[in-house]
Amino acid sequence: MKTVRVQASTSYDILIGNGLLSRLGKFLLDVFGKPCKIAIISDSNVFPIYEKSVADNLNQADFETVSYCFPAGEASKSAATYLEIVNFLAQQHITRADAVLALGGGVVGDLTGFAAATYLRGIRYVQIPTSLLAMVDSSVGGKTAIDLPFGKNLVGAFYQPRLVVCDLDALNTLPEAIFRDGCAEVIKYSVLYDAALFDHLQKNGLGFDRLAVISRCVELKRNVVAEDEFDNGARQKLNLGHTVGHGIEAQSNFTISHGQAVAIGMAIVAKAGCPEIYERLLDVLKKFQLPTTTTLSAKQLYDSALSDKKRSGNTVNLIVPKKIGDCAIVPTEIEKLESFIEEGL
Amino acid sequence: MKTVRVQASTSYDILIGNGLLSRLGKFLLDVFGKPCKIAIISDSNVFPIYEKSVADNLNQADFETVSYCFPAGEASKSAATYLEIVNFLAQQHITRADAVLALGGGVVGDLTGFAAATYLRGIRYVQIPTSLLAMVDSSVGGKTAIDLPFGKNLVGAFYQPRLVVCDLDALNTLPEAIFRDGCAEVIKYSVLYDAALFDHLQKNGLGFDRLAVISRCVELKRNVVAEDEFDNGARQKLNLGHTVGHGIEAQSNFTISHGQAVAIGMAIVAKAGCPEIYERLLDVLKKFQLPTTTTLSAKQLYDSALSDKKRSGNTVNLIVPKKIGDCAIVPTEIEKLESFIEEGL
Repeated sequence: MKTVRVQASTSYDILIGNGLLSRLGKFLLDVFGKPCKIAIISDSNVFPIYEKSVADNLNQADFETVSYCFPAGEASKSAATYLEIVNFLAQQHITRADAVLALGGGVVGDLTGFAAATYLRGIRYVQIPTSLLAMVDSSVGGKTAIDLPFGKNLVGAFYQPRLVVCDLDALNTLPEAIFRDGCAEVIKYSVLYDAALFDHLQKNGLGFDRLAVISRCVELKRNVVAEDEFDNGARQKLNLGHTVGHGIEAQSNFTISHGQAVAIGMAIVAKAGCPEIYERLLDVLKKFQLPTTTTLSAKQLYDSALSDKKRSGNTVNLIVPKKIGDCAIVPTEIEKLESFIEEGL
Repeated sequence: MKTVRVQASTSYDILIGNGLLSRLGKFLLDVFGKPCKIAIISDSNVFPIYEKSVADNLNQADFETVSYCFPAGEASKSAATYLEIVNFLAQQHITRADAVLALGGGVVGDLTGFAAATYLRGIRYVQIPTSLLAMVDSSVGGKTAIDLPFGKNLVGAFYQPRLVVCDLDALNTLPEAIFRDGCAEVIKYSVLYDAALFDHLQKNGLGFDRLAVISRCVELKRNVVAEDEFDNGARQKLNLGHTVGHGIEAQSNFTISHGQAVAIGMAIVAKAGCPEIYERLLDVLKKFQLPTTTTLSAKQLYDSALSDKKRSGNTVNLIVPKKIGDCAIVPTEIEKLESFIEEGL
């Protein structure tokens, strides 16, 4: 097991390894000091596989548990599901002495995290990411959110968990397409920060060293979050591929997954902003069977980007590679954004 | 004009005086440095009286404004209205470079503050409290919230405004019953912290010195918030009269106002916990034409208190006067709460 310590407004550990779910009760006793009531929140994909063993393990360590399951999918990352969860917590008389546990992928984490951040103005929160994407991205750094009809992640909070447990065994029950989705974010870290990691991915493809690579991605994100918890500077780099990617996701009505959209988004900004890395990036994305092009027009992608949170008045901060392992934040006037996207298509 | 500086996770000024709304544009330029887009959120009581002059004044200072009005009343402090507001902000393309302005009483401030705290994970927020209650209580300290069907203020965030402007002229358009409501919180501050303030209120009744008393209450609350922004200790004292009061409000379906409920709540805890101040407290509450008794049973009030946020596992922290100007936080086992309330009825 590897432990990555996050130093943010609240400090906490991210545990990474195999067989960790069977030790969950012990981990939580270490963090909380004594048992409490824990509300397990999960979705219809993950709940049937893991909820019983998680609850049993917690009960054996004297935690009381209640569980809530919502339909899997991005459509659930909505205000409606958020309200169902906080009403469930109220109905179950969850207090500030208790805790909420997110069991699942990015949607479960983002949604449950926002519920934990706002119920009673914030109660203790534990995250068990079960997808690769959630392990390397959404479980690190305390960004929680729900979608609005006008765009993704438009409502949320910065809220840190008390513990994150990444059990690599959970990846064995992940559909392969969902696993590849997470690989898009892994590739993103390597383009942003780590040329050696990029080399390892290019060489090994989907057979990469899971413990080493996932731990490295978590460390890289931890470092960024420590530098810029509230997303005013360096953290914006994590948006590589996302300004365009979010538009692709939204315009496809989420039939194109987040990871696929980010892969396409990275390909577009690399082609437009750093042609010299474009071929190598395409090679890696294809090795991971990720898409690299879209049939959407520059105008359509531009329209979606206008509601991006990274927009500040009349500029959008685009993240553009300089070379493998280094990227820049490029403030771009919104009038110039459409032609930039056009170059990358 | 008096200025009270709040030092919290974000520092900001609370301006108190007459004729301040006509200088609003200047105040906001001082705080923000340059004009931006401002979303004015108000309710159907306050909007018709003040929205036009506020918008005109901001426009003259080169701020762009958009406005949203919702039906007045506690029933609007709901998830439904909250979602309408954040969707309005998204629809109007409000960005992190812009700001939200709450124009109204406690409901407007709590609701708008929560929208500002969570839209794009938090954007700049200005508060213009137009009721006495909002000036002395809900506008100071960054507590924002909405109600759930299961209880008041069950969802929210700690979120500090960038500026609070208390224009005392707004109190002249306030219905007298609503003004008296705010007086319950003013009396609460005097019981908690300031015997001289209590004397002034007992002597002058509704004719108290508004600038001096309101500024003093804001200072008192500022001091508590500085000591305990996140409500883990001293700030809980502000809950004097509220654990029981929230139950009275809820059980009456909010036909009994917050101020009336807090007045009754204070009378009950004083009678049960500090009989020696009970007669003086009754005298002051009656001078302000506030109620001091309820027909609800101890069992009914106890049931409501079980979902109080101040509950921590099996204890509720009750705030009990020791003398005029000093109160204690008394952790009370929930089994003993019903008999305590019974004594105060």
